[in-house]
Amino acid sequence: MPTTNYTSPSYTASYRILLDESATTLSQVVNAIADTGASIKGMDVVGQEEERIKVDVTADTSDSEHRRKISEVLAALPGVELRTVADQTFLLHIDGKIEMRPKFPIRNRDDLSRVYTPGVARVCQALYDEPRKAYGLTMKSNSVAVLTDGTAVLGMGDIGPTAALPVMEGKAVLFKQFGNVDAWPVVVDTKDTEEIIRIAKAIAPAYGGINLEDISAPRCFEIERRLKAELDIPVFHDDQHGTAVVCLAALTNALKLVDKKIEDVRIVVSGVGAAGSAIIKLLQAQGARDIVGYGRTGALTADEITPDMNADRRWLAENTNPRRVSGSLKDGLRDADVFIGVSQGNILEPEDLAVMADRAIVFAMANPTPEVDPVAATRYAEIVATGRSDFPNQINNVLAFPGLFRGILDAKVSEITTELLRVAAVAIANAIPEDKLRPTYIIPGVFDQRVPREVANAVREAARTLPHIETVDQESARPLDEDEAKQWPDLSEVDQH
Amino acid sequence: MPTTNYTSPSYTASYRILLDESATTLSQVVNAIADTGASIKGMDVVGQEEERIKVDVTADTSDSEHRRKISEVLAALPGVELRTVADQTFLLHIDGKIEMRPKFPIRNRDDLSRVYTPGVARVCQALYDEPRKAYGLTMKSNSVAVLTDGTAVLGMGDIGPTAALPVMEGKAVLFKQFGNVDAWPVVVDTKDTEEIIRIAKAIAPAYGGINLEDISAPRCFEIERRLKAELDIPVFHDDQHGTAVVCLAALTNALKLVDKKIEDVRIVVSGVGAAGSAIIKLLQAQGARDIVGYGRTGALTADEITPDMNADRRWLAENTNPRRVSGSLKDGLRDADVFIGVSQGNILEPEDLAVMADRAIVFAMANPTPEVDPVAATRYAEIVATGRSDFPNQINNVLAFPGLFRGILDAKVSEITTELLRVAAVAIANAIPEDKLRPTYIIPGVFDQRVPREVANAVREAARTLPHIETVDQESARPLDEDEAKQWPDLSEVDQH
Repeated sequence: MPTTNYTSPSYTASYRILLDESATTLSQVVNAIADTGASIKGMDVVGQEEERIKVDVTADTSDSEHRRKISEVLAALPGVELRTVADQTFLLHIDGKIEMRPKFPIRNRDDLSRVYTPGVARVCQALYDEPRKAYGLTMKSNSVAVLTDGTAVLGMGDIGPTAALPVMEGKAVLFKQFGNVDAWPVVVDTKDTEEIIRIAKAIAPAYGGINLEDISAPRCFEIERRLKAELDIPVFHDDQHGTAVVCLAALTNALKLVDKKIEDVRIVVSGVGAAGSAIIKLLQAQGARDIVGYGRTGALTADEITPDMNADRRWLAENTNPRRVSGSLKDGLRDADVFIGVSQGNILEPEDLAVMADRAIVFAMANPTPEVDPVAATRYAEIVATGRSDFPNQINNVLAFPGLFRGILDAKVSEITTELLRVAAVAIANAIPEDKLRPTYIIPGVFDQRVPREVANAVREAARTLPHIETVDQESARPLDEDEAKQWPDLSEVDQH
Repeated sequence: MPTTNYTSPSYTASYRILLDESATTLSQVVNAIADTGASIKGMDVVGQEEERIKVDVTADTSDSEHRRKISEVLAALPGVELRTVADQTFLLHIDGKIEMRPKFPIRNRDDLSRVYTPGVARVCQALYDEPRKAYGLTMKSNSVAVLTDGTAVLGMGDIGPTAALPVMEGKAVLFKQFGNVDAWPVVVDTKDTEEIIRIAKAIAPAYGGINLEDISAPRCFEIERRLKAELDIPVFHDDQHGTAVVCLAALTNALKLVDKKIEDVRIVVSGVGAAGSAIIKLLQAQGARDIVGYGRTGALTADEITPDMNADRRWLAENTNPRRVSGSLKDGLRDADVFIGVSQGNILEPEDLAVMADRAIVFAMANPTPEVDPVAATRYAEIVATGRSDFPNQINNVLAFPGLFRGILDAKVSEITTELLRVAAVAIANAIPEDKLRPTYIIPGVFDQRVPREVANAVREAARTLPHIETVDQESARPLDEDEAKQWPDLSEVDQH
């Protein structure tokens, strides 16, 4: 794999040493560290003890073993005492990555009497009379619960709610930074589907939306379906739909480059779990007709529906694979135009791609190890994308969820429809003008600030024009008393100052 | 009552008018508003339209009716057009009062790879191996859930979770401003005791503590008791214990002034719900021996235990009232040294206090209307306190909960004992030096910044010295890998820069 022994900023370490420069110079120290293959990020002289200087040397390493090796190298240098070693990733996590902040301080009695008792009681009364005013007068207007049971976290699987917390905090950071959404982790210490549904419904009043995260299949399908049906706020399972949106965006641009139409191409999807099934459905909504999904036992086909199949798997078998292909994934690649992998690492050799159609597109999105070596895959496919940041064309959910929720919260959309997902995907794709598209540039970078803005715009626009989207009555969120609101013009002018 | 027709900053209104000064001058407008009894806060000329100036006049009014009256007065003035009227309390609530904030931005790839994938996976792994590291590496270190079902909100009763949200947001603001605690509202759409317990337990992994709020009695007792027993994080019902802590603090100082000892005084408590029973228990812990509690049917006494009494009520009947007093509250005031009211407004005439002992102390804490007119009460009692901000000696929970939780989170205390509450109360009392105490100054003001700091100090100190408090192993929160932590000195130095 291409990344073996790459140094990585996720393994940055800081070595604090006491150095007697008459025995070893600082540049010798730096050279010794660099000789292990580490990337020196910088050094800071932070003090002095007796005749020795105190120095922090910071370097990217490739893994824990490498980090340890550097400590040994340092300890072996004459005149060097290693005092501490710090891991930048762990340091960033100390006491967590997020906080709650008041939007304005309480400076005096007047503020206190408005923010809390007695003034707050009038706001409570207004909400009691008309609960939908919560969209105008409470945190509900901009808050999203990031809900997980920790059963399917990154590539780690079922690590539970506590260990999942740093991921949910990170998600919250991304929500805020890219979408100005106030996301808050809700990690639940239960794996019971019904219990999770009950909890999500119970805590919903404070939130304008729920983002389900890293919940294992097939429970995630049932939880999402039930919450969508039983709650009046939008519910979104990012592992399914976020991935699907960005995948469709990338595919849309890739197809432009190879001059094929989604209606005409043969698409092979490896992996029919949460992400795979959502991708298949969204590609179908965009017009794809020939999709074959592959699970561990081969192609899903209506010819081989077994009694033990769950409802989701059965739906896929019945609604994909129009040519009734059977057999292995490798067989299925023959003449395929598009391969989409959301399964596991290294299940294909690069040579297996040779049987694909001309101008093939390969999205090998398994993390951290793609389904096929993406560098070697470029010998057989015109366009290759992965989920990784160290290869061109990273298919990263962060392109979708912040802007999508921004638009949804602004438009007060009560349900996220497939059409909204499709609109978001098109907005991501269109963020790259057609004349700028290249085989290594089919999807915008995650730091492209236009993307969340344009996704949000597209969602707001769609929410206005699509008749089947229910929106909350904006009027109901007015801050004035009901009778006064009727009597006087609206507050919009005064609100702004 | 003393506050009738008082103007209040919780009823501040801003009137935007267009004014033709040739017909009416601005000072005539201001005078006309002031003549209604409003307190003018200021006026701002914000623009011009044709020959008229656009002015915002802001004034404190006494209620909605008064606010409306001013509009009529303005509309009747020649040359005045009322454009909009805005309510400052409602304006402050637009879109809610709190937000989620990342502690640091994601500026580049390196940051992203540490905050989120792939770096975050190492932190997850460390937490999976040792879940208690959550206290060092996640939001758990400083987060408190403010949990309510909205059944006993302020004086409003059962208004439900949505209408309760502004109170919980306000509470979160106070937690942060006075205690630097990251509190987050958890409003639950269920009144089922078992369901609330299940939800609190399920969401607990992300929180270092749970603050129960505005849950009606007697369910609040069972919920608190069960959560304390079944969770390993501190659980605190503010309506009970916050009130009790501040009440004890005020009583401690009041007794100093009247030169009596808590062991010797006769104390009458009106109201034996959440607050009343907690007050009784905390006063007992501080040494009080003669307390009689009064419910709606009179004195609680061991002589009159009925089969329908719940366990909490029965406990009080059996463990208070050593003289076996029976009868009405008014009868019980005879020779009482202390009256503490946490019941309802206007249940006593000031003259009823005449039978109390010399140098009587009266805490009439019902909100918004005290049990007895506090101004008139000063004719019969040496010291009078209320829950109100417009009378001296406000007994306000905000003096307790921010510092208490600050100390608890810092000390990683897993349970809030009565002893900790007692220590917090003493710290609040001691914030006023003895020589500064006056009958109208027995309790610090809510903006006295020393109070939360000193409460937190006292709690941390008590947590260190009291043997029965379980603390989480600080060592377990180390950010280094387990094996490295053994090998090298700790990170404390590096953490700080």
